[in-house]
This record gives sequence, C-alpha cells and structure tokens, in this order.
Amino acid sequence: MRIAVDVMGGDHAPDAILKGCIDGLVELESNDVLVLIGDKAMISDVLSDRGIKDPRIEIVHTSEVIEMGDYPADSVRKKKDSSIVRMAEIGSHRHARPCDAVLSAGNTGACVAASVLKMGRLPYVHRPGICVTIPAFHGPLVLIDAGANPEPKAINLWQYALMAETISKIIHRIEKPRVAVMNIGSEEGKGGEMLNRVADDLRKTPNCNFIGFVEGRDLFEGVVDVVVTDAFTGNTVLKVAEGLVKNLFALIAREIMATDPALAMKFEPVARGIYKKNDYHEFGGAPLLGVRGASFIAHGSSQSKTIRNAIRTCKQYVTLGVNDAIVHRLGEVMPLVYPTNVPEAEREHA
Amino acid sequence: MRIAVDVMGGDHAPDAILKGCIDGLVELESNDVLVLIGDKAMISDVLSDRGIKDPRIEIVHTSEVIEMGDYPADSVRKKKDSSIVRMAEIGSHRHARPCDAVLSAGNTGACVAASVLKMGRLPYVHRPGICVTIPAFHGPLVLIDAGANPEPKAINLWQYALMAETISKIIHRIEKPRVAVMNIGSEEGKGGEMLNRVADDLRKTPNCNFIGFVEGRDLFEGVVDVVVTDAFTGNTVLKVAEGLVKNLFALIAREIMATDPALAMKFEPVARGIYKKNDYHEFGGAPLLGVRGASFIAHGSSQSKTIRNAIRTCKQYVTLGVNDAIVHRLGEVMPLVYPTNVPEAEREHA
Repeated sequence: MRIAVDVMGGDHAPDAILKGCIDGLVELESNDVLVLIGDKAMISDVLSDRGIKDPRIEIVHTSEVIEMGDYPADSVRKKKDSSIVRMAEIGSHRHARPCDAVLSAGNTGACVAASVLKMGRLPYVHRPGICVTIPAFHGPLVLIDAGANPEPKAINLWQYALMAETISKIIHRIEKPRVAVMNIGSEEGKGGEMLNRVADDLRKTPNCNFIGFVEGRDLFEGVVDVVVTDAFTGNTVLKVAEGLVKNLFALIAREIMATDPALAMKFEPVARGIYKKNDYHEFGGAPLLGVRGASFIAHGSSQSKTIRNAIRTCKQYVTLGVNDAIVHRLGEVMPLVYPTNVPEAEREHA
Repeated sequence: MRIAVDVMGGDHAPDAILKGCIDGLVELESNDVLVLIGDKAMISDVLSDRGIKDPRIEIVHTSEVIEMGDYPADSVRKKKDSSIVRMAEIGSHRHARPCDAVLSAGNTGACVAASVLKMGRLPYVHRPGICVTIPAFHGPLVLIDAGANPEPKAINLWQYALMAETISKIIHRIEKPRVAVMNIGSEEGKGGEMLNRVADDLRKTPNCNFIGFVEGRDLFEGVVDVVVTDAFTGNTVLKVAEGLVKNLFALIAREIMATDPALAMKFEPVARGIYKKNDYHEFGGAPLLGVRGASFIAHGSSQSKTIRNAIRTCKQYVTLGVNDAIVHRLGEVMPLVYPTNVPEAEREHA
C-alpha cells in the first residue's frame, strides 16, 4: 500500500506532521510506502538530522504551499505545484504511480477542491462529503458533512447517509447503524421541505435503519450512530463540541484547585482518561467520502499523534475496502430511490 | 407592570409552569399583575388547592392548546382560542388591557408566528429573532437567532447584531460588546457572500465593536460577547452545548464512581457549582427581539425554577427599556447603512 502525506499543511506543519509520519512508520508493513510531499531539502534535512533511513519513505518535491487563509478554489487553480494539489494528483488512479490514500492537515476547502478535481468521484456519487467520527461518550458517532458541501441538495444528503452508514458498519462494526437527519424542533425550519424529502427517501431505502430527525442535544445521548447535515452545521457542531469540552475541563480544573488542591491530584487521572477517550486527535483524519480513491483530511491543529493515528486510519480504510462497499451500496439502492439520477454507464453496471 | 404567562405550554405544563408562576410572585411589586393564560377551572383549582389568593393574579381562560408537535403557522391560524394566540394578543399594545411582557415555554415556532402576527414589529425591524444568553464560562454570551428565522437575509443578521448588542449592553452591562458573525473556516462556505455582506455592514456601523467572524470553538473561549447566526445553526449550537454538558458530567460522575467513590463525594459539590453556573434554567426565557412589546420564549423543558427566573427576566427587560434602546440604536444607524430600507414614516421619525 502507498500512502501520501502533505507535509506542508496544518497549523503545526511541517514539524509535527513530519514527526507524525516518522512515528507512523510503525503502522505500516514492510512493503508499504509512505510518500512525503513538500519541500524536499527540508524533509531530507529533518530525516537525516533524526537518523531516519527507511526504504519505505519516498519524497515528492513541491515548491508551493496553500496557506490556511487562501481561497480554496482560487489557490488550487493557481498553485499548481502546491503540496495539496500534488497530493491530490498522486491520489488519483490516473497517476503513473498512484497512492492508495492521501492525507493533509492543510486548508480544508483546498483539500476538497483539489481532491474532487484531480481524483474524481466514485460511481453514483454526486458530491463528496467529509465524514467525521466523534467519540460521543456512548460510542462512535459518524457525522457527515463536516465541511465540503455547504448547500447540499436532497440527493447529496441521502447519499451522505448511505456512505456514512457504510463507515459505521465497516469501520466501527455497528451492525445496523441508526441513521438520522439533523433538524431543529420546528418542521417548518430551514430547508424544511428539503429535509423532509431526505427523510422520505431514507424511509424507503431498503436495509437502512433510519430513525428520523434528531436535534443537537441527541448527538451525545447514545441514540444515533450516523447523523447527516450540511457542511455549515456539521462543522459548527464539531467546533462547538471541541471548544466546549476543552473549556469545561479547564473550568473544572480551576474550580477543584480553588476548592481542594489535594482533590485535584486525584481527579487528574480521571479527567485525563475521559479527555483521551473523547479527543479528536485519537481518531486522526476524516475521509472525504465519495472521491475516487481515499482522501483524508486531518484537523488543522493536528499534532504528530494525530497524523500517526490518521495514517493508521488511512490504512484501515483501504484494507477494509470501504469504497467498494460504498459503490455496492449505492448501486443497490440508487436505481430504486433515484432511478432517473443513475447515469447510463452506471445503469448497465448496476 | 403586567406580565402574562402561557400556563399550557411546555413539556412539564401545566404543573411546573403554574408552580413557577406562583414562586415568581416574589419577583413582582405590589402593583404588578401576573396574568395566567389557560384552562381557568384547572388554574383556579390548583390555586385554591395551594391556598393561593393573591390579588395580583388574573386568569384569562382559553379552550385550546397548541401542542409541541403542531405545525406553527397552521396551528396559530386554526387554534384561535389557544393559550399561545391569546398570549400574543394580550402582549399587543392594541389590546384593551395589554401586558408589558408575555412568556411561553410552548411550541417555539407557534410563539414566534403568533407574536409577529399579533404584536407586530418595532420600527425599523424587518424580522424578529430569538436572543439567548449562554453562560459561556467566561461571561454571558448573547446568541441570536436561536430559532425564529432559518433563512435570514443580510439585513436581518445585521439588525440582529445591533439588537443583541443592546441586550449585552443593557442587560449584561458590557460596555463595548464584542460582536461577531458565525462562520466556518472557509471563506467560500455557505452563504459566504451574504455573510461577507453582513461583516462589511457591521464594519461600517458607527460605535459597533465588530470583531469579524468566529467559529464554533470560539464561543466558549471568552473572546466574543455577541454572536449572530441563522436559526438552524443557532438552535443547533444551543442544543449541542446542552446535550454535551449534561452527558459529560454524567460520564465524569460514572468514571469517578468507578475509580474512587470517596472522591465522588468530594467532587459532587464542585460539579454542582459548575453545573448551576452554566445551567440555562438560571437565565429563564429568551426574548424574541424586534417584536413590538416583549415576547419571551422559555425552554420546552422548563421547570418551575426556569419560569420564575424568566418572570424576573421579563420584568428586567421592561424596566430597563430595552425596546426603546433598540429603536434608538436602529434609528441612529439604519439611515447610514441601509438608507433605502428605512420606510418613509420612519425616515421622518429618524
């Protein structure tokens, strides 16, 4: 297996990313390859400084970097020799020596744009979506979309549900994932009609354990395994959860210290255990589901640990054949639920 | 002052609501009036069972109830003698004996629809929005809109910012509230152009301490006082925060019990203190800013304590003259930022 990592992307790039790659070598077999994409001289220097001489490492030199604040579509068009664009190219099956999975902690919008442009889409898929696993106290909660498609159509959300359901089944080994669509209390809420259409479509999808609408508060109650929403809401949910947990633990620590410093000593291992179990760094990257290949997006603030875990996640994704399962699932139900949206070529294939 | 409460609305209605009203009498002066709206026989029975004979209580009988699951616009049209519709009527200055503020823990959509229909809007205001105060660890965070307007236009969000800024100043006594617009990382995100328009408008609004865009994770960092967003996102943020905090505390309790029951005893008062400080029940209702009058919406799961606190919040809102301040603020800046959107009648007034 060949896995490529964009060494230049992320708040702590390139140091933390490179360290994560080096640490991640233990996740790989002897015949796997880790392709490091970025400034070759810099990468070589770091490797030789650390005495790393591993035949499984390849370097692809790039001369440009897409910054976190760059406009995604713009920068992908203009910075043709950026690490993100090169990464997406090497992730395509059309590349001379393609990689099975690619990974970046850089500009999310640029990763999405470059991946869709260079790698293309899986059969049946209209729009790829970012699929994040949240450690939600009661078990892994799969949320899609976390940042790729801010104005989804009904068919996009319906496909997201089925792609994320596949992740829940194959990666998290949940037999009949409970699938829900995010909504607010009111039936007449935003996109009410569109969300009702998605719900209707999921209700008539064979072998889909659709449980209806859920609200924000349900996500952490252990009542749902897969949640479908638009990129704005999904991204906001993730970041609110992240900020809230971080600040709540800080507040608890302050209050305990103020009340009883001895208690703080005892509480610390408990807090550490909980935090670790619910830390997004543990899960590593999130796949952009629906692209042809495997494109993983890691958190902008990724530490070396995040990257190492993401490399493991990439390997697992490819090994378990998630994409094949997605295409099989969509091929099974698209002709039933969206018959007119199945392209000619794929209709034969179905 | 006259305050009306919909006794029939809320998950724990009518018992918890009535108890909250009775407890809330201590928040009122001797010449204030509390109008209880709902089934008169039931209300009278409860009051006499408890030996409550307070000359400040009036009862308005209604024969219908809008249920939590009813379609808002539909039910407001059809259930003309429902407690929510009657409440909104008595909240209007056109009523023979109007109330200064009205309050319901019932169907949020119906409260919004009835209030806008019966009470009308303040001068300059295009669309009312629900304004919630979140106890965000570092101080009160004012979020608008939490459920009234799922597809806001730029002018709506701009007005929300100025109305919520007024709440932050007058109710929370923050001199120069830091105002921000919620967005996701990407500049090309959902409604990107519209949100950029709102940001531009706020930048050129005199005496507005606009700090730009914030993401979900910033809400609990103490870097912002007023956050503006659409109803879907705002509502979801609130509910995610609610569900997350509740489940995180439950998890901490379980983990501590499993590790060291003696530690649990000591941790309990710390947890209780933190939970209380960050409990939405403490803040009571949320005003629907922009209606002519004062319409407060309390959480569906309101307990008697929530209602009592909401009665205090209503009284404070009216006493401090929030609506006058909103009209003054909009009158000051509308002609500068949205000159063509100021109606003729209000243009003279300005």
